[in-house]
Amino acid sequence: MIPAPEVSARPTAPGAVFDWLDEAAELRARAGLTRTLRSRPAEDPVLDLASNDYLGLTHHPVVTGAAAEAARRWGGGSTGSRLVTGTTALHTELEAELADFYGVEAALVFSSGYAANLAALTALTDPDTLIVSDAYNHASLIDGCRLSRSRVHRAAHASPEAVATALAERAQPRALVVSDTVFSVDGNAAPIAGLSAAARAHGAALLVDDAHGLGVLGPGGRGAPAAVGLTGAPDVVATATLSKSLGSQGGVVFGPQRVIRHLVETARTFIFDTGLAPAAVGAALGALRLLRAEPQRAERAREVARTLAAELTTAGLRASDPDAAVVSVRAAGPEQAVAWRDACRDAGLAVGCFRPPSVPDGYSRLRLTARADLTQQQITQAVRTLVRTRPQA
Amino acid sequence: MIPAPEVSARPTAPGAVFDWLDEAAELRARAGLTRTLRSRPAEDPVLDLASNDYLGLTHHPVVTGAAAEAARRWGGGSTGSRLVTGTTALHTELEAELADFYGVEAALVFSSGYAANLAALTALTDPDTLIVSDAYNHASLIDGCRLSRSRVHRAAHASPEAVATALAERAQPRALVVSDTVFSVDGNAAPIAGLSAAARAHGAALLVDDAHGLGVLGPGGRGAPAAVGLTGAPDVVATATLSKSLGSQGGVVFGPQRVIRHLVETARTFIFDTGLAPAAVGAALGALRLLRAEPQRAERAREVARTLAAELTTAGLRASDPDAAVVSVRAAGPEQAVAWRDACRDAGLAVGCFRPPSVPDGYSRLRLTARADLTQQQITQAVRTLVRTRPQA
Ligand SMILES: Cc1ncc(COP(=O)(O)O)c(C=O)c1O
Ligand SMILES: Cc1ncc(COP(=O)(O)O)c(C=O)c1O
Repeated sequence: MIPAPEVSARPTAPGAVFDWLDEAAELRARAGLTRTLRSRPAEDPVLDLASNDYLGLTHHPVVTGAAAEAARRWGGGSTGSRLVTGTTALHTELEAELADFYGVEAALVFSSGYAANLAALTALTDPDTLIVSDAYNHASLIDGCRLSRSRVHRAAHASPEAVATALAERAQPRALVVSDTVFSVDGNAAPIAGLSAAARAHGAALLVDDAHGLGVLGPGGRGAPAAVGLTGAPDVVATATLSKSLGSQGGVVFGPQRVIRHLVETARTFIFDTGLAPAAVGAALGALRLLRAEPQRAERAREVARTLAAELTTAGLRASDPDAAVVSVRAAGPEQAVAWRDACRDAGLAVGCFRPPSVPDGYSRLRLTARADLTQQQITQAVRTLVRTRPQA
Repeated sequence: MIPAPEVSARPTAPGAVFDWLDEAAELRARAGLTRTLRSRPAEDPVLDLASNDYLGLTHHPVVTGAAAEAARRWGGGSTGSRLVTGTTALHTELEAELADFYGVEAALVFSSGYAANLAALTALTDPDTLIVSDAYNHASLIDGCRLSRSRVHRAAHASPEAVATALAERAQPRALVVSDTVFSVDGNAAPIAGLSAAARAHGAALLVDDAHGLGVLGPGGRGAPAAVGLTGAPDVVATATLSKSLGSQGGVVFGPQRVIRHLVETARTFIFDTGLAPAAVGAALGALRLLRAEPQRAERAREVARTLAAELTTAGLRASDPDAAVVSVRAAGPEQAVAWRDACRDAGLAVGCFRPPSVPDGYSRLRLTARADLTQQQITQAVRTLVRTRPQA
């Protein structure tokens, strides 16, 4: 056993136990990685291309009205975990409508998309499972992999071939292939038809995180599996968040009935977490019904993205080729990306800014959301602002 | 390398990849561990002693009104992660008022208490840290330990001595002692003054999960650290949920400014998660203001618990000695606990039911919440129902 450090080496003032946090902050500051919270006002004059409000439903009176009514009727919170008192009839209604819309046997609602991903990854795997995870997957999927008791193979980005190879070479009887459907920074779609074929050929299940696909891809926004004919597949599980296209908060897992039952009975982030607040359940239900009544919103979000990318490219910027409702624009480097984002904000345009290590490929960029409710005039304004504020490389 | 299984051993029908879930369900069913979701109606005639609505604020018109107004004003969701668009002025207001109430430099709000615990445990530890974790800690703390990159020592329940020994024998320069303040099943309080002394003597920090203490313990419900004179201690970090005493949803971390800054800049469940929905922020703020205006609610919850436990004991049941707002009653075994819970429900009384493996000590019991707004008549009714429905051992 390694001897304990000398007592004299121990900090004397109690607060000294956190001195190392200041050193870590200093290192981040020197690397230009300081992050600060800015709060926004209710009536924000800024043109928002930074949020994930893809369908522009967050402030829709039907959505906010449904949230308000749910809070009044059902209370400020759900009062307990889902298996004790945290399941209201409203939760059950939302789950039934989500399952019907997505074309699956069952859906299960969580307090966040993050919690839904942790649940799916931990409950659907065991030490006899190999997880094959796309290299660019979302942090919540990565944390789910780490919480699982499985071996994890990090596969080359968007490569069914790499997945097939990892599956073929595995020693484990079971396997789970995991991928975002739309990668959040560039808005590129994963090759999920290819991933599904690779998984099937090798007796593996497929888990897709449709956070940026639900409401945007597929007929009427039914999501990425619907877009490639995988609706209701018996070997596919999808997760999503209620906080992007559906303008609310919460997460959901879609899948065969037996998968959902397994999650109810075994997933720790389901069992030991308070049920989603009624207002969020109501808002998501309101948004879902709006989307069903106005399915063109999904196509409109994709159209806005294509227009935005085309106009940016014409203007000489390096825009991504969007598969969903996100467009990214390359910056010359991390400092330039931050300066560009700040200059846009000063000019009344909110955009996202992503730098390494948040982006796995090392390129800094701005991230723009193509909301379905952007007008052509707003798109033009955004492009003009981006061109005008572009820092010199 | 172990050779891959024969291809013929692989399932043929795609859905066969989930056959093992049915086998697992079968095993759970045989062990009597099947769990099913029941949804409750809005106007539930049942007397609720199963929720965590300790102060009875979930349905208070001030709370539901604040939720409704926040949704109308700020939207159904927060639209993005906290560092991008998910911080509204309402979030900042709630964080300032929570910090002031709890007596700490800063507070940071998360989408759930689960996420807050994962954040604190992963961001405040590293491979040079030993985590000393109470054996009965909540699942979210355990998952946080598992997600951390630290060694974890599981210490005997509620034992400052065991903690001191583990700290003294450690090889790591840093250490974090982790405990619930009130254990959720029996409602017994952790010896946090002793844990703090042990941590200080050995140069360790203390992290306490005050999910069941906030709103119930300490002067005016200021929480467990306040109850033992640890308010604002520079080496203590507390987490809590907004979903119990505060009648809403969400989580919070309380601590020194530098701890909160560290979480903002590094905690994955903060950075990569959508901000809490405005309605939940509003509800929590409404409840917090009510509690400050009516501080006797905290004392009343503890009083109800003591009365309930005393009357149950007088009636011959084996009730726990409550330190907060939870009372548990021993059942003869797991089947008896379930039968008792179901008989109570049929008689119009909702209570919680905990069996191994959810309880670490092997005893099955019912769990009763002593809501501050229970009347003496309701307490008497609950005791009578519990006595009348008690299964024969
Ligand atoms: C791909 C992806 N998955 C999961 C999440 C987490 O969802 P939530 O914010 O509801 O926790 C996000 C973003 O927030 C995401 O972008
Ligand atoms: C002790 C404890 N910590 C954390 C949590 C998680 O909080 P939340 O439900 O807000 O995720 C709970 C219960 O839900 C709890 O009982």
